[in-house]
Amino acid sequence: MDNGTLKRPRHAYTDIVTTTQVTLVQIDNYGPWTVTPEPRREMDLQTMQSRLFADIAQFVGSRDGYAFFTRFDNMVAVTNGLDDRDHERLQATIRNRYPVTVSLGVSVAERPIDALEDATGRIQAAGSAQDHSRTEVLAGEYVDAPGDDDLSIAHFDVNDATGKYTDQLNEFDSFIRIEQGYAALMKRLREEHGALSFFVGGDNIISICPDMTEADYRATIDHVSEAADVDFKVGVGRGRSAHEAGFAAKHALEDCRYEGTTVEFAAPTAVTR
Amino acid sequence: MDNGTLKRPRHAYTDIVTTTQVTLVQIDNYGPWTVTPEPRREMDLQTMQSRLFADIAQFVGSRDGYAFFTRFDNMVAVTNGLDDRDHERLQATIRNRYPVTVSLGVSVAERPIDALEDATGRIQAAGSAQDHSRTEVLAGEYVDAPGDDDLSIAHFDVNDATGKYTDQLNEFDSFIRIEQGYAALMKRLREEHGALSFFVGGDNIISICPDMTEADYRATIDHVSEAADVDFKVGVGRGRSAHEAGFAAKHALEDCRYEGTTVEFAAPTAVTR
Amino acid sequence: MDNGTLKRPRHAYTDIVTTTQVTLVQIDNYGPWTVTPEPRREMDLQTMQSRLFADIAQFVGSRDGYAFFTRFDNMVAVTNGLDDRDHERLQATIRNRYPVTVSLGVSVAERPIDALEDATGRIQAAGSAQDHSRTEVLAGEYVDAPGDDDLSIAHFDVNDATGKYTDQLNEFDSFIRIEQGYAALMKRLREEHGALSFFVGGDNIISICPDMTEADYRATIDHVSEAADVDFKVGVGRGRSAHEAGFAAKHALEDCRYEGTTVEFAAPTAVTR
Amino acid sequence: MDNGTLKRPRHAYTDIVTTTQVTLVQIDNYGPWTVTPEPRREMDLQTMQSRLFADIAQFVGSRDGYAFFTRFDNMVAVTNGLDDRDHERLQATIRNRYPVTVSLGVSVAERPIDALEDATGRIQAAGSAQDHSRTEVLAGEYVDAPGDDDLSIAHFDVNDATGKYTDQLNEFDSFIRIEQGYAALMKRLREEHGALSFFVGGDNIISICPDMTEADYRATIDHVSEAADVDFKVGVGRGRSAHEAGFAAKHALEDCRYEGTTVEFAAPTAVTR
Repeated sequence: MDNGTLKRPRHAYTDIVTTTQVTLVQIDNYGPWTVTPEPRREMDLQTMQSRLFADIAQFVGSRDGYAFFTRFDNMVAVTNGLDDRDHERLQATIRNRYPVTVSLGVSVAERPIDALEDATGRIQAAGSAQDHSRTEVLAGEYVDAPGDDDLSIAHFDVNDATGKYTDQLNEFDSFIRIEQGYAALMKRLREEHGALSFFVGGDNIISICPDMTEADYRATIDHVSEAADVDFKVGVGRGRSAHEAGFAAKHALEDCRYEGTTVEFAAPTAVTR
Repeated sequence: MDNGTLKRPRHAYTDIVTTTQVTLVQIDNYGPWTVTPEPRREMDLQTMQSRLFADIAQFVGSRDGYAFFTRFDNMVAVTNGLDDRDHERLQATIRNRYPVTVSLGVSVAERPIDALEDATGRIQAAGSAQDHSRTEVLAGEYVDAPGDDDLSIAHFDVNDATGKYTDQLNEFDSFIRIEQGYAALMKRLREEHGALSFFVGGDNIISICPDMTEADYRATIDHVSEAADVDFKVGVGRGRSAHEAGFAAKHALEDCRYEGTTVEFAAPTAVTR
Repeated sequence: MDNGTLKRPRHAYTDIVTTTQVTLVQIDNYGPWTVTPEPRREMDLQTMQSRLFADIAQFVGSRDGYAFFTRFDNMVAVTNGLDDRDHERLQATIRNRYPVTVSLGVSVAERPIDALEDATGRIQAAGSAQDHSRTEVLAGEYVDAPGDDDLSIAHFDVNDATGKYTDQLNEFDSFIRIEQGYAALMKRLREEHGALSFFVGGDNIISICPDMTEADYRATIDHVSEAADVDFKVGVGRGRSAHEAGFAAKHALEDCRYEGTTVEFAAPTAVTR
Repeated sequence: MDNGTLKRPRHAYTDIVTTTQVTLVQIDNYGPWTVTPEPRREMDLQTMQSRLFADIAQFVGSRDGYAFFTRFDNMVAVTNGLDDRDHERLQATIRNRYPVTVSLGVSVAERPIDALEDATGRIQAAGSAQDHSRTEVLAGEYVDAPGDDDLSIAHFDVNDATGKYTDQLNEFDSFIRIEQGYAALMKRLREEHGALSFFVGGDNIISICPDMTEADYRATIDHVSEAADVDFKVGVGRGRSAHEAGFAAKHALEDCRYEGTTVEFAAPTAVTR
């Protein structure tokens, strides 16, 4: 049956520009806090950071956004669908439950990197990340006319990572391979396309992308294969929210798995839940 | 007062071999679970993974070990001081509170990578990470005669990361710099010394090392500076437990900050709490 | 200044009926799970239950609802403002992150107890709480025309609990006093008014009430004082959501504290945040 | 087979006195914090309290102790097996991860209430629970010669609570029944025996008891049946730790279930895990 082509037209989304709302979450004055009055136990810091991220992931995620841990002291979220009131609430709930506070910068652009650049600038304008009098900045602009294809998300994973790495190498050598692949992929996608790519565990990378063609994705994967000797495949989805786009991307990646292909675009019909 | 040299003799520990107990925590059959019966919401997976790691960090950390999130589906911990009963308990508490179970492989060696290699092998011997009938493996050997200097931990951070990156660049470009530095550092330390290095947030990397000289650390830092154009400094500590060694390393890193130096070894007196 | 009377007309809300949406959250087949294949460690159960409640409190609370732990295996939430899609999402996120699943019954009535009665019936109709084939029921009806004063919430606390109990008695004897007071209050308010009252920690009780007069509250407090020898005061608020009504009630309770009064109604102006 | 009697001699433990170590965990200056600078969102408080309790339950529980949420701002734990260093660590990990700190009072006595009385006194001696300059008190004494039968724990539940209440009544009316039963039981056991009883969810109550006979338990159950019209059964266990005693009690309670009896004592052989 060859109507697969009809079901998943590979360039379906080309020429529809993206509109990406990005939030930078920055813990206020975190570095100094971790060593005051003396260095705090590392595992307490790890626990606190991970749970803070988990709470943000749950808050943003239950509103159909995506959040990424990035460097933990700075986290990046895709927040189409969340307004200033949601952001205020996120800020308040963290203040009420953690020993630290966060600043939030929000901005919107076609290219994810441009939205993040502007979001970062809004926080930087208020003072240094280590300025102890700069707390709980909330500065942003929000999408005002949401569209069905505003977001483009690509979900990458490594071909047969379990068979080639996890079940063969010691865990650190597996991890090195994935990390080198990630380092190459994140750099390439940022430089060539202004995309933001995040390692999300296992052998998975999620990229917040502008509108890109199948050829763009193939060239990216080829580059990483050469530069880092790690072979990725990718599913790409579009949607009104990060969840919608990302969920479509996951389904497209499943298609890659079943059909042995390298790049799949989700059909334009939005999938929910 | 110039007895700083006396307080921190830089080669104090050289020639005392390390004894590192490493635990590999592997979520059983996790990949398939994340897409069964259909892909699960990404932010739920992120929340679950982060909290699972946080719980392991808290369990291991409150017994003076260190745990690292690594790839989240596979986590690595330094567990000197934890015996098989502690490991059984960790396995049971996860089973009782999460929708997934974990397998644990434990081993001991002078070089951290050798301990992890053996720990990984113990789990691999029982079946594939995606074999759904292989659950809750617990296979290991434990340190039987603990010594005061069994562990060597190096705590790296980037020189003036806030001033040069966080307050200047957009967050993703800052992150790319740190990631490229981490990718270079982890690879080098593993290849040259069999050390295990983990990004722990911000601009911090913690390495579980064998006995290494100041020259070894300087060569590592120089290599990364050339390869990735990121400048690290490092504090190094020894101790009976990961916490003890790591806490000493943090203090040594504080010394680097105050004195503008690149490599500092903690004085041999163990620091607690 | 005596315009306090003007600011807080004590019967301001009388004669505006309440519209309360109540959700019953019931863990599916939980009792049997806790002892299969043999009794699970009690502290693991306590940890799991508390965190499940915390996640529900956060999910519901960040949408301006209130959730109460009640018996932990059965939790009650006031969910005006949350629709069926929110409830589906709550159910899914628990399934994805916990070893248990939940059933949800939702209903709406003027009196809170009637809403809960109907919500409970919707779950009971699908099978026993210990029927292992009855999982993830989602049955409910939702408020369709929300009004500004739909909810009435009363926040009670014990007069000078710190001075009379916490700083004087051993903690268990303090606790017994609070518990006896709670047991009397919950019973009275349910029997006389169909209100649902929940202990929320310290010496605080939050009641979801129908429209009640100042005289009703005074009679309740007098009854408890006689029956259990514990003296409460109460702030009462109205609002479109549990948060709005509850927040107004907290402010009214602060008024009791500052003015030494026993019953205060919040001014009709809704307070947000 | 009638060797059940041999396996579970009902007075096996009588005449071996208990040695109970109790810790009072009191959040410092919590009341004022919850309303400063204005009342905090109730669901944030609920989330924070529940997670703080969960962390304490996990910390204490993974060392074989038991913790109870009690009033949340004051929690009671049975900590045989935990020394001052463990308590210091608990205090530090809370400081590092929460917006509040805790004071800890620890004491040892034959009767649980006497241990708590003394533990409470140690904190009260340092200042009021609402004295903002009194933070992180750590004052205690610890068991110095642990014995195999130091603790006696009784695990109560309500006969056929699911059939009689959960599947028949609305959840609040079920809850009222359980609460009235709990209020009567906690008061009776404290007054007659100096035991500490805690509701742990569902229809379960766990009591930390001194040495008591089967007749004592029967009289207690009869009293509650008359006073509150709720019928309990109970399993009783002894052990070196709360977990050991409590786990034996759970098994004994399972025996009640299978054999339709009202009071069962666990066989003296300690059960682990």
